[in-house]
Amino acid sequence: MKILFRQMVIVIIFIAVSASVFADEGMWLYNDVPAQLLKERYGFEPTSAWLEHVQKSSVRFNSGGSGSFISEDGLIISNHHVGADALQKFGDAKHNYYRDGFYARTLKDEKRCLDLELNVLMSIEDVTARVNAAVKPDANAADAFASRRAVMAEIEKESLDKTGLRSDVVTLYEGGAYHLYRYKKYTDVRLVFAPEQQAAFFGGDPDNFEYPRFDLDICIFRAYENGKPAKIEHYLKFSSKGVSDGELVFVSGNPANTSRQLTIAELEYLRDRFLPYVLQRLNSMEVMLTAYSARSDENARRARETLFGVQNSRKARDGMFAGLLDPQLMAQKQAAEQALKTAIAKDPNAKEVLNSWNLIADAQQVTSRNALEYNLLEGSNAFNSTLFNIARTILRAAEEKPKPNGERLREFRDSNLESLELRLFSEEPIYNDFEQVKLTDSLAWLVKQLGYSNPVVQKILAGRSPQERAAELVLATKLKDVSLRKKLYAAAPADVQAANDPMIELARLVDQEARAVRKIIETQDEIKRQAHAKITRARFAAEKTGSYPDATFTLRLAFGTVKGYQENGQAIPFQTTIAGLYERAASHNYKPPFDLSKQWLDRKNKLNLKTPLNFVSTADIIGGNSGSPVINRAGEFVGIIFDGNIQSLVLDFAFTDVQARAVSVNCQAIIEGLRKVYNVPGLADEIAGKKRP
Amino acid sequence: MKILFRQMVIVIIFIAVSASVFADEGMWLYNDVPAQLLKERYGFEPTSAWLEHVQKSSVRFNSGGSGSFISEDGLIISNHHVGADALQKFGDAKHNYYRDGFYARTLKDEKRCLDLELNVLMSIEDVTARVNAAVKPDANAADAFASRRAVMAEIEKESLDKTGLRSDVVTLYEGGAYHLYRYKKYTDVRLVFAPEQQAAFFGGDPDNFEYPRFDLDICIFRAYENGKPAKIEHYLKFSSKGVSDGELVFVSGNPANTSRQLTIAELEYLRDRFLPYVLQRLNSMEVMLTAYSARSDENARRARETLFGVQNSRKARDGMFAGLLDPQLMAQKQAAEQALKTAIAKDPNAKEVLNSWNLIADAQQVTSRNALEYNLLEGSNAFNSTLFNIARTILRAAEEKPKPNGERLREFRDSNLESLELRLFSEEPIYNDFEQVKLTDSLAWLVKQLGYSNPVVQKILAGRSPQERAAELVLATKLKDVSLRKKLYAAAPADVQAANDPMIELARLVDQEARAVRKIIETQDEIKRQAHAKITRARFAAEKTGSYPDATFTLRLAFGTVKGYQENGQAIPFQTTIAGLYERAASHNYKPPFDLSKQWLDRKNKLNLKTPLNFVSTADIIGGNSGSPVINRAGEFVGIIFDGNIQSLVLDFAFTDVQARAVSVNCQAIIEGLRKVYNVPGLADEIAGKKRP
Repeated sequence: MKILFRQMVIVIIFIAVSASVFADEGMWLYNDVPAQLLKERYGFEPTSAWLEHVQKSSVRFNSGGSGSFISEDGLIISNHHVGADALQKFGDAKHNYYRDGFYARTLKDEKRCLDLELNVLMSIEDVTARVNAAVKPDANAADAFASRRAVMAEIEKESLDKTGLRSDVVTLYEGGAYHLYRYKKYTDVRLVFAPEQQAAFFGGDPDNFEYPRFDLDICIFRAYENGKPAKIEHYLKFSSKGVSDGELVFVSGNPANTSRQLTIAELEYLRDRFLPYVLQRLNSMEVMLTAYSARSDENARRARETLFGVQNSRKARDGMFAGLLDPQLMAQKQAAEQALKTAIAKDPNAKEVLNSWNLIADAQQVTSRNALEYNLLEGSNAFNSTLFNIARTILRAAEEKPKPNGERLREFRDSNLESLELRLFSEEPIYNDFEQVKLTDSLAWLVKQLGYSNPVVQKILAGRSPQERAAELVLATKLKDVSLRKKLYAAAPADVQAANDPMIELARLVDQEARAVRKIIETQDEIKRQAHAKITRARFAAEKTGSYPDATFTLRLAFGTVKGYQENGQAIPFQTTIAGLYERAASHNYKPPFDLSKQWLDRKNKLNLKTPLNFVSTADIIGGNSGSPVINRAGEFVGIIFDGNIQSLVLDFAFTDVQARAVSVNCQAIIEGLRKVYNVPGLADEIAGKKRP
Repeated sequence: MKILFRQMVIVIIFIAVSASVFADEGMWLYNDVPAQLLKERYGFEPTSAWLEHVQKSSVRFNSGGSGSFISEDGLIISNHHVGADALQKFGDAKHNYYRDGFYARTLKDEKRCLDLELNVLMSIEDVTARVNAAVKPDANAADAFASRRAVMAEIEKESLDKTGLRSDVVTLYEGGAYHLYRYKKYTDVRLVFAPEQQAAFFGGDPDNFEYPRFDLDICIFRAYENGKPAKIEHYLKFSSKGVSDGELVFVSGNPANTSRQLTIAELEYLRDRFLPYVLQRLNSMEVMLTAYSARSDENARRARETLFGVQNSRKARDGMFAGLLDPQLMAQKQAAEQALKTAIAKDPNAKEVLNSWNLIADAQQVTSRNALEYNLLEGSNAFNSTLFNIARTILRAAEEKPKPNGERLREFRDSNLESLELRLFSEEPIYNDFEQVKLTDSLAWLVKQLGYSNPVVQKILAGRSPQERAAELVLATKLKDVSLRKKLYAAAPADVQAANDPMIELARLVDQEARAVRKIIETQDEIKRQAHAKITRARFAAEKTGSYPDATFTLRLAFGTVKGYQENGQAIPFQTTIAGLYERAASHNYKPPFDLSKQWLDRKNKLNLKTPLNFVSTADIIGGNSGSPVINRAGEFVGIIFDGNIQSLVLDFAFTDVQARAVSVNCQAIIEGLRKVYNVPGLADEIAGKKRP
């Protein structure tokens, strides 16, 4: 259940505020953990040392997931499907590490990732007052947005200059708070170990978002500094005992996005416009990628990670859509909104606060009218091409970089340029045929959405069919050459234009429209942000309970109980074993995606088949939590999140622990697998705490 | 490239008229073959005996394809993918004839198809004058439609009573002509032989609509009468020589639908509304069916034929859409329309005729506005469920049958009832889980299209989520019971209502809306029909060349040359061999869909590897021609159509023989396969003309 930033399917971001909390609900801020609640319910009091240790052991994968340090020499564990992006980029016609796995016997064999950036959260600072002070109370929404963007860029730049740390101002509670997050960055990250995909993603798409599960969804990297393994103070020790039924566990990771505090008007937009659009887009891409993959093994290799991402997104969003079509869930949402409105009636600014719902609904209408054009032109749904993304970045860099920091499009702020350049100058392989297929398909998608006669469509097609146009663009652009990218990225706008690269010229052709519609959406977001801020303040006053903001792909602490559940009258146990893996494979006659690799078949009799493989807990997670460590009271690593069950897909909108569960790999299965299936005792020893030789 | 009537994806039918003809163009009427042209170009003069022989050897599969008699004892050959519907319905959890193939060693072993109806065209009668006379010149479109429907039903009923033959009035040249087609019907059709799907559909979806090809896409049935093999006067003898490069061949089959004579306004509707909608629908179904199939072998078996049909449709329509986005094709269409308008200016009724284009464009606008609701409610896109189709037929039968024949919905006309009942009372297996998955998905599709708050959507969902509603309907309906269907089909409306079956009640719930929107579409069709009739008459006067009407799933004769083509600077040869099959499988490491069954692998050294396997010709074909015999001058069977190449997908709109080719199985490969791979000498002997023992 990885979130896919590179997918560019999620383009309108919903941000919102939080309310009162039940059961094991909550994706808590590290500077606002529910200490009282944990003490009362579980008799557990996390010390500040415990919290710092867990926080600094946690790692964010900027490609879209979570992970953690597990050795003092910089070993990091995440999911195979989080590592997939890096694995895919290593591959070529003769090597399919994503499918076949990888192991580096020595440090020298560890393979450096092409464009992977990891972040470790070092500190959080509340900068709400400074951000709000920069926005004049009577400013219109467009000016307010500009002022807010400027002050955020300024704070980030100051912090970067002062500390050398990656510095991001994060909008929480939708303007209820602005916190400055400072991260230590690792950009020299090397691949140490990945199992074959059969084991990591046993059951494939059919078993994705399902439970019981039997997956060894892990991938192990090492962080380097100055060409040597990084020395890590805070890392998690593997528990030797795994988990037991009913145990309290913590999850420290980066949930990407939730929509729990959206108003009904915003939820209706998701249900009526956003999800229908995204699902159609995903279906269309899945069919295109599946058909392309079926033509040859090499095609399948090239499209593998993209296809998995699309299928994963499709299944997640199908579940979200089903949630919004569940009359009970919507009734519950409506009742909560009504109750809050009633409670707020006592607020001195009640009228103004109540009007915030109308302002949000109106802004959502404007967003709704512009969302299609935004998704197609600014969100690049019309240009599904790596080369196009490179072209647009180069075009815009030339225009944005000369501007003052605070006036640039947000991705070009000074404090973000290093991260942007890491991706822009990636040596990731780019395949002409795959680029052409994707671009042809997305140009046809554009035609289907806006209609052939639309002037923008006509301008983009330039008198060609989508297929001809895609071929002409992909074959003529020179942007596969990274040195050319570096040259143009450093060039003045006139020199970029003089390069006369057709893909850059395509980006230029639509840039005015794309920027214009982006401005509309950003302005509506500012209106919603201000309105949500008012609702949030009134809510806090009315409810007086601890709370947490909706997910923002920043580090959060969740907690929960290791616990099975009931489904169709059956008790689903809290954990599975390695024996269960063999049974499930046999029950499907070892047919893909239920097949096992030769090493798993050959070494079955060496394994302790009773070793727990996967387990479930009530911890509150969502996409982006993939790879998050699961931690016990002692601060030990007991497992790693890799999925949620099908009932968890509504967690985007509301927490429930009746059947919804987070699914993890047990730490014991990891060690058992490394030692007995993969025969990599050195790696297992390092994880177990033995010093590297 | 089978057409899928049961798919209910194609719902708005386009009918049109024909113009002058080039090269080997033409899907000719049997009562209007281009004798002069054949004589001049090929020195071939088909005698009336030759024509009658070919016509009466040709068989229409009402499940959506073509075929031919190949023995005096009723053997019929068609494609495996045309037989797929029957093969699928025979299967159960223990038998997968569709995948694994079938052979009946004795007559007793031949398996009777559950609901397959075959038609052999016996005569054609021009009834244009009588149909037109029944429509008052000053009638409005709705009345004109009613009068036309009534007289057609009357003619059909008279003919059925008089001859006992299935009698259909076919609208040709869109009202330029109405012909009465009389068919001998076979409803006792038994399966004799099918190869495994690996051989029949070697290369699967990747190679579908591609060439070179290596497929043994055949399926052999036997027609029975009175419980015994039918005695057939007209059947095709297999040629012993196959085909040679440059040879003239004929194709006798039932092309389902072409759009060559649509006006630009109608083509733009296809491009801007119809195809984008249908492609999204197909993508969505393909993802749903693929995901369902991946869960288990048994699921895959249940969904197999449906999934193939959807993929086939998707690929065909992708090609059509690409054709309409080709500026050259559209420019050619526009130029032709303009040239025709200029030519017509000399017509005494020029003004009225020229106005016909406006009338069509206006009617198309109305159709366009109503098409979505029509597709969802009347076309059943919202109710993708076999049980729903049964329920609707029962509901409507009770209301329609008491009406006078001419006033009924056209499918309930007297002359069609036997065919309707054959399908309604089919013992085809229906699976609750598959029904639920399909119905859930299509109800969600409905929500996505009309929006959750739409009153019709709310009425249909009845306070449930799509999943809950589908489960409640599928599990509670009693319509799986064929005896109940028979009882209710014979019952009065009040008794159908008293049965209180939830699926019938769902059909009732939307029946008013469905009938209303159907009436709108049918009325617009009448307007277009009258307008097209005027254009056609004027065109014939202006052009004075022989012509043929757009395809209507009625028997047509096409002709062409056996001939390779150039692609990307390469010469693509006119035929492939069995050796090529083994080479292609090896080059894909025998991975599905490029794998070979054990018998093909084991018996390779018994085969003459030089035997021609597939060949291409310039004959003018389209979906529905699947299974059509390819015939030489001597009237012998030389091959069987099973596909068109990717360049042929634009044939829907315009004929071209530059690269577009029809793809056939060579008759020699059929005999070689039957004797040496499948080891069925009895069947091969019967086809070779030996008397059955």
